Amino acid sequence: MNAKQPSLWIEDLKITPIAMGDPPLLNAAGIHAPYALRIILEMVTNRGIVGLSEIPGGEKIHRAFLKVKELLIGRDPFQLNEIRQLLSENFGNDTSDERGANPWDQRRLVHVFSALEVASLDIMGKLLDRPVVDLLGGAARESVPFAAYLFYKREGAGGTLGYGTDPAATGWAQARQAAALDPQQIVNQAQAMCNEFGFQSIKLKGGALDPTTECDSMIALQEAFGPDVPLRLDPNAIWSLETAISCGKRLEGVLEYYEDPVRGQEQMAKLSQSVSIPLATNMCTTSFADLPESIRLGSEHIILSDHHFWGGLKASMELHRICNTFGRGFSMHSNSHLGISMAAMTHLGAALPTLDYALDTHYPWQAEEVIKGGKIPIEDGAVRVPEGPGLGVEIDPDALSRLHQNYLDCGLTERDDEAEMQKIEPSWRFELVRW
Amino acid sequence: MNAKQPSLWIEDLKITPIAMGDPPLLNAAGIHAPYALRIILEMVTNRGIVGLSEIPGGEKIHRAFLKVKELLIGRDPFQLNEIRQLLSENFGNDTSDERGANPWDQRRLVHVFSALEVASLDIMGKLLDRPVVDLLGGAARESVPFAAYLFYKREGAGGTLGYGTDPAATGWAQARQAAALDPQQIVNQAQAMCNEFGFQSIKLKGGALDPTTECDSMIALQEAFGPDVPLRLDPNAIWSLETAISCGKRLEGVLEYYEDPVRGQEQMAKLSQSVSIPLATNMCTTSFADLPESIRLGSEHIILSDHHFWGGLKASMELHRICNTFGRGFSMHSNSHLGISMAAMTHLGAALPTLDYALDTHYPWQAEEVIKGGKIPIEDGAVRVPEGPGLGVEIDPDALSRLHQNYLDCGLTERDDEAEMQKIEPSWRFELVRW
Repeated sequence: MNAKQPSLWIEDLKITPIAMGDPPLLNAAGIHAPYALRIILEMVTNRGIVGLSEIPGGEKIHRAFLKVKELLIGRDPFQLNEIRQLLSENFGNDTSDERGANPWDQRRLVHVFSALEVASLDIMGKLLDRPVVDLLGGAARESVPFAAYLFYKREGAGGTLGYGTDPAATGWAQARQAAALDPQQIVNQAQAMCNEFGFQSIKLKGGALDPTTECDSMIALQEAFGPDVPLRLDPNAIWSLETAISCGKRLEGVLEYYEDPVRGQEQMAKLSQSVSIPLATNMCTTSFADLPESIRLGSEHIILSDHHFWGGLKASMELHRICNTFGRGFSMHSNSHLGISMAAMTHLGAALPTLDYALDTHYPWQAEEVIKGGKIPIEDGAVRVPEGPGLGVEIDPDALSRLHQNYLDCGLTERDDEAEMQKIEPSWRFELVRW
Repeated sequence: MNAKQPSLWIEDLKITPIAMGDPPLLNAAGIHAPYALRIILEMVTNRGIVGLSEIPGGEKIHRAFLKVKELLIGRDPFQLNEIRQLLSENFGNDTSDERGANPWDQRRLVHVFSALEVASLDIMGKLLDRPVVDLLGGAARESVPFAAYLFYKREGAGGTLGYGTDPAATGWAQARQAAALDPQQIVNQAQAMCNEFGFQSIKLKGGALDPTTECDSMIALQEAFGPDVPLRLDPNAIWSLETAISCGKRLEGVLEYYEDPVRGQEQMAKLSQSVSIPLATNMCTTSFADLPESIRLGSEHIILSDHHFWGGLKASMELHRICNTFGRGFSMHSNSHLGISMAAMTHLGAALPTLDYALDTHYPWQAEEVIKGGKIPIEDGAVRVPEGPGLGVEIDPDALSRLHQNYLDCGLTERDDEAEMQKIEPSWRFELVRW
């Protein structure tokens, strides 16, 4: 639609796959590899302004970016309708472009568009000398609350082409490499993480151990932190309805919300009839197309958005409006990520007119960083909105090279938690319903 | 939330009530007065950039602006969350702040916020040297289709402290002052309007004459324009369900959509069970709060948005997302308006990822203009997206003075179509259900 030569155009798209150290975190699909994969996007414009973005990585997404890269060169980064159209023409009829049953989302079109949108908003903010939050309606809050994100885990810190540990580590660095395989170790992990970052809400990734142990862990957390700290459990849709009901009944009065205990909207709807805990999802309702049925069935009370998977920051604002309109809560899902994603999540979190739940983040689990100045501070469980311009973060070129070298060295090309687990337990298999 | 001194702030808010000539157009609530009231907003910033906006007028809205004006001085115009919060604190608990039963919306909070949001986007676009459409995702189309908006009317052009006519008028200027009180005169009006502006969709404001005449008019329009020109009828919720069903059955195969034939979502839902024409609304579902019940009941197929009443351009984009998500169509409602509103509607219309229906506009009925260069051209029934920066329109100070003087001279302080009708027919009364 943009017949004229734009005054601002994309001169280059630098697409850098990276791998960052990640601890052996357990989940329904297996175990995190020693490295987590991301892609760093640098959208270079003719005016020298560069828009940044970070997105879950792997060869499939990397190839998707490479496929559209040449089409995007010369385009005006403000023309997001045009860019989405371009992507639709390239990915629209690809029926392999589905979310998948794993805890992580695997759609390409929406990933690629989401990444481009964030980079475009970074450019827009830089042109205006304004933080991205100001492009989304301005800050409704100066800092954005995040939740402690606990994992059952084996010993190890990750990031050494293996799950090595550092005997000299202290504080959270020490705690993050410790094993956590029972309720007391989970409480220890929570205390170390909350001491370090001041989190005031706590989530446990479940679906890893047997449900009784996971429920015991939630009860142990409530005993340790008291009734005023909101607690959440996320079994990643791997429980049967019966298990989810019996665990849910045990956890009434314990959980703030119960995240994807079962698979699919119909089971979530049935569960919500039986258990008086709000249900949250990032697995059963994961796209705008899923929302009408979620609303009709009343399958979830809270949608866990993720701007990487819902089409970017403006689409996430639109999702928030839908949640608000239909009486649903809104919070945020996360994957292992670095500071560019953290900045984007924080700008979005600050712009939301209402925010009832602390957001998820894996950020404390990753020791590395790709942005200048190192890790973004989390204080009192919250992240201050970066002051900008744009996202308010810059790439550290040395760090980017190092993380890209990690990618080349580690040999991983897709996230595959099942394969990682099989390196440890060869007979282990992912199951859609395990308990 | 904005503790720091902003670098850009609102230095002044010029709020100018204006009155523009309006012909004696008939509708369910009576007849248009010889002048229609608008308010022109100039948001003056410390950097000399001025954001423009136009909103339905009258003393009630004027006073609402004056009430918040002092609170807004010194604020950063990007901080829309903060501004909305400020308005909520001032209007939030005012239970008189309701839409009302008239065809036009009378809520103050959302009017005032909508106007401020558009002015803020105009400023943002000017700072970026970009059209507003580029702040909304970029243009999905270069020009935006509008529909011919027909009215039953008495003879007269309006705007002369009475409904005077100009014997020297030719073309559309002549046709717009002609009476239209039967099907043939409506066809004549449509032909004159379509000849002048090239409209390719046609809407008739109904609820003015008896339903049989109004149905006859639609059938006459179809005979005159052929089956490929989309036709719509809007009785402004003044028909009984029985009337709407029997008229609807007559108009199957004639209407593209049937706009608010009955009052309230429940009656619309019942109607949609009986008549196979898509139902549209700007009276039964008029706010985000109304949407869940509209979706649940299936009461309407198409929501006629109006950025003046739904919270501005970004909120309208959010409404479009909701319509798209829930399989509802989206188009636009209009009141009598000038070029600032036309520009805002066009930027929004261009940014919508999908647009299935030509938008409503009263624009051809108003001969006057408040912007430099006079009326925005409508060619082939469409308006080209103004190139910006911002809304791409500037105030003509002489025109603004003249239109403000009209306001002072005309003596009207609120739109009251019933009172105007009573000047002609003293016994006439507005009725919630007339036929």
